[in-house]
Amino acid sequence: MCGQCGCEKHQNKPTLQRLELHQGLLSRNDSQACHNRAHFQAHGLMTLNLLSAPGSGKTALLEQLARHWPRQPIGVIVGDLATDNDARRLQAAGARAVQIRTGDLCHLDAALVDEAFHKLDCSGVDLLMIENVGNLVCPTAFDLGEQRRMAVLSVTEGEDKPLKYPALFKSVDAVVINKMDLAEAVNFQREVAITNLRAIAPQAELFELSARTGQGLELLIAWLDGQAA
Amino acid sequence: MCGQCGCEKHQNKPTLQRLELHQGLLSRNDSQACHNRAHFQAHGLMTLNLLSAPGSGKTALLEQLARHWPRQPIGVIVGDLATDNDARRLQAAGARAVQIRTGDLCHLDAALVDEAFHKLDCSGVDLLMIENVGNLVCPTAFDLGEQRRMAVLSVTEGEDKPLKYPALFKSVDAVVINKMDLAEAVNFQREVAITNLRAIAPQAELFELSARTGQGLELLIAWLDGQAA
Repeated sequence: MCGQCGCEKHQNKPTLQRLELHQGLLSRNDSQACHNRAHFQAHGLMTLNLLSAPGSGKTALLEQLARHWPRQPIGVIVGDLATDNDARRLQAAGARAVQIRTGDLCHLDAALVDEAFHKLDCSGVDLLMIENVGNLVCPTAFDLGEQRRMAVLSVTEGEDKPLKYPALFKSVDAVVINKMDLAEAVNFQREVAITNLRAIAPQAELFELSARTGQGLELLIAWLDGQAA
Repeated sequence: MCGQCGCEKHQNKPTLQRLELHQGLLSRNDSQACHNRAHFQAHGLMTLNLLSAPGSGKTALLEQLARHWPRQPIGVIVGDLATDNDARRLQAAGARAVQIRTGDLCHLDAALVDEAFHKLDCSGVDLLMIENVGNLVCPTAFDLGEQRRMAVLSVTEGEDKPLKYPALFKSVDAVVINKMDLAEAVNFQREVAITNLRAIAPQAELFELSARTGQGLELLIAWLDGQAA
């Protein structure tokens, strides 16, 4: 019974059913991800799954990588619910890019990536970036077959995002703090943000940069190059 | 068969199963939302579901509303995967606030809101804001029993977000463009953003403001006040 107005309070027990279904989907995804991983390795690719909130600057970062990667072109598989804006931006920056339009799906899964990969010309490519749907929750659980996973966090989003979305930040090999050129304008509390990141993701390499100006990009490129070797 | 390396390409047919499950969950959610709606109305509340990407400034906006709503206090139900940072911020601003911690759930649902509502002291409250999980995809499909739905989009996120997340923007009664104080610093293309918004969400009232400075807040308060009447 409702304590305020006496109406009957509904019981809600969806958790177990959701969990079982979720595990079924994830198990199928994991098999496909293993296939993808073998496939990427057979092609000599270092593959990275790029995760962030909408508007953190994933595409701007990939445009810079496309222009400055020492062994161009890079390959990009890019996911969005709608539009092929990002693939077109990346192609203009010199990348080989294939767009996945997910419709209402909130994350990429390994099967979607597999399908897109078969449309990508990977000859001469050694770095494949997978730009996930902008979402700090759902992409976390879906292995795409990538070798490395990286989150982008922009200074405009607030210093507590790692604490609020811990599963994602715990799952990554690296974190980029982006839009450092705006840090002063938004009164970004750098030490607070880094303390929060270190509390949740002590394993992650940390890069502070501006995808817009290119400031700090060289350290990220050097790290990626080391991973690819 | 894979066109590139001859490996067997896995078949993936998850769409139908996903759809059926999704509809089952939504059907249960809709029943609970109807219950919530009657419940909110019985308490004389105008209820609004607030949606945005992580870091768009939902909580900062609610802090301003808590301070400037003509009939204080406002009630807030606030969802996050982890932490009760937002409820504490809102309480400090004078709101009655209850935090929902969703764990790994990417959206609020009607049952979670019902449970939180029964913890909220609504005496003397006429405006109940529900701050959803920061996510531009998953919350869209879940009716919480709200009367109005509003999206927040910040100028730092890029002008094309309504095109990329059309389902969410089509579902709202109002859109706040937030962080207008940063528009110049990020070279925000106001006309492009508004053209995109109007293409996707012609039904939505539009407010341009800065939750940080308070600039433009009075028009939003007047609109909310009109909805509540």
